[in-house]
This record gives sequence, C-alpha cells and structure tokens, in this order.
Amino acid sequence: MAYELPQYRDTVRAEWGDYNGHLRDAFYGLIFSYATDALMDRLGLDAVCRARTQCSIYTVEYHINFLQEVKVGAEVQVTTQVLAADAKRLHVYHAMTLLDGAEGSTDPVAVSEQMLLHVDTRGPKSAVFTPEVMLLVRAMAAEHAGLARPAYAGRVIRLP
Amino acid sequence: MAYELPQYRDTVRAEWGDYNGHLRDAFYGLIFSYATDALMDRLGLDAVCRARTQCSIYTVEYHINFLQEVKVGAEVQVTTQVLAADAKRLHVYHAMTLLDGAEGSTDPVAVSEQMLLHVDTRGPKSAVFTPEVMLLVRAMAAEHAGLARPAYAGRVIRLP
Repeated sequence: MAYELPQYRDTVRAEWGDYNGHLRDAFYGLIFSYATDALMDRLGLDAVCRARTQCSIYTVEYHINFLQEVKVGAEVQVTTQVLAADAKRLHVYHAMTLLDGAEGSTDPVAVSEQMLLHVDTRGPKSAVFTPEVMLLVRAMAAEHAGLARPAYAGRVIRLP
Repeated sequence: MAYELPQYRDTVRAEWGDYNGHLRDAFYGLIFSYATDALMDRLGLDAVCRARTQCSIYTVEYHINFLQEVKVGAEVQVTTQVLAADAKRLHVYHAMTLLDGAEGSTDPVAVSEQMLLHVDTRGPKSAVFTPEVMLLVRAMAAEHAGLARPAYAGRVIRLP
C-alpha cells in the first residue's frame, strides 16, 4: 500500500492505569481521542483553522472494542482509516496496536469506530467543511476506500 | 417505580475539559467507567471480593452517544439500567444527566451501552459469577426488565 494511514503514538501513563496496573477502559478512549486530534491536524482542522472559522469537530458517537489488556508503560500506535464522509461528517475507524514487539503480535489491542461532526461552535450547529478541508477529506476517503472493511465496524452490542 | 436504579454522581474536573472548556469525549467515558465501578460495588463485586476471588469485571465493548456539551464544573448523575445478563456477562445502559437545573432539562447529555465480562484475572479468562453475585445480578436484571428499552440501545454507527 503506497498510501500511509494517519498514525498517532503514545505511551500509557501511570495515571491511566487501574488498580491492577492495566489501562482503564476510558483511557483507551483518551488515546483514540488524541488520534482523532492528529487526524484533524492532518485534514487542516487544526487550532489555526478553529480560531479562524470558529468551527471544530465534535464526536457524536463512538464504539470501542477492548481486545487485550495493555500495561502501564506500554507504547501504542493508533492507525486511522476513513470509512466514509459527507459534507460535514467523518466516519472513521481507529486500530490500536502495541509498538514493543514483546507480545509478538500486530493484532489490535482495541479498536474504535467513530462518527465525527463538523460544528460551528457559535451555535453550536453542524456546518459544512471549508472547501480546503473538503478537498483533503475527499482525497483521504478515496484513498482509504480500497482498504478492507475492518473486522469490528458496524457492530451492535448484544449478549452472544 | 419502587426500585431505585443504581446511580453515580460526579463533578466535571478542569483537567477533563478541552481547549474550549467542555468535557472531552473520553472523559464522558471515564465518568461512565466510575458508574460501572459503582454498579460493581452494588453487586458485591468490590475490592474485597476481587481480593478473595481474583476475579474482576472487564469492559469488552462499549458505545457512547454524545448528546449535549457539558461544561467544566457541571455536576452530573449517571443512572444505570441492566438490559440483560447471563452467567458471566452484564449488558448495561448508563444515562448521564445534569444535576444543576440551569439547562432546564432532564434529557440525557450522553448515554453508554456496555458489555461487561466477569474475568478470572489469573488467566485472564472469563469466569462465572459467584453464587452470591449471581443472585444479586438476577434480582437486578429482573427488576429492570420492566423498564422501557432505552432510546440509544442497539445502535449501529453509520452516515445518515
């Protein structure tokens, strides 16, 4: 694959651990939140753009699957795939893997499907992307359209 | 309704805010995580039980809908409904509302549907609830079975 997916790297901080020294569920979500910030920067939706347009990205809905325990101190990487987009929404999929090969696997430790909405914060009310951002969104969505549909996209939560 | 749903209350801390003074997505998740802890305590799955049985609750999957902005300093309450349960799983639904009536509404500001699994941490591998916990889980699930199905349960994420 020639195209490099957006990536975000972080290290699991002690204050994100539970009583047992493992990453608490909500802090997987925080790492995914930072990965969304990194995606926004890459699409030109950065602090400069926010100040100029008074627009920002709001998370309206997300889903996380917790697949493996992650220890405090672990280095993780999130790779982001755009599943779909329209004039003011991004449907994205984050996959988190361990960077240190100790566990000997590149299987994700957690994944998150998210719906992100472009919002004019003065309302707040939804707003179409600027033409410049829309160009970048369309280009990224087109490049990612050829990738395989991720395993945990489109899930409903229910007892087995 | 005679039966009181499990509740958890908290105040939105400054460090949970984004650049704009609103609760960041992941920290809604942290408040829901604390609400799950409160539910566990109520079902006898507390620190004493964990130490004795080496078992705990793992979140395997969750879904959050972010419905309204919440400001730093706001007081929030999470009410929890058990949607279903089996010998080692709990399917629950948390609804977060504002406690200060300034916004004049009891509509939820966020909701979270979650699948929780009882795990023997020595594996880790899934484990059936102890008989004492199972009694409490069954009683709570039966009491909640008569409640209306929540609006945001069973959702799939997709573009409209």
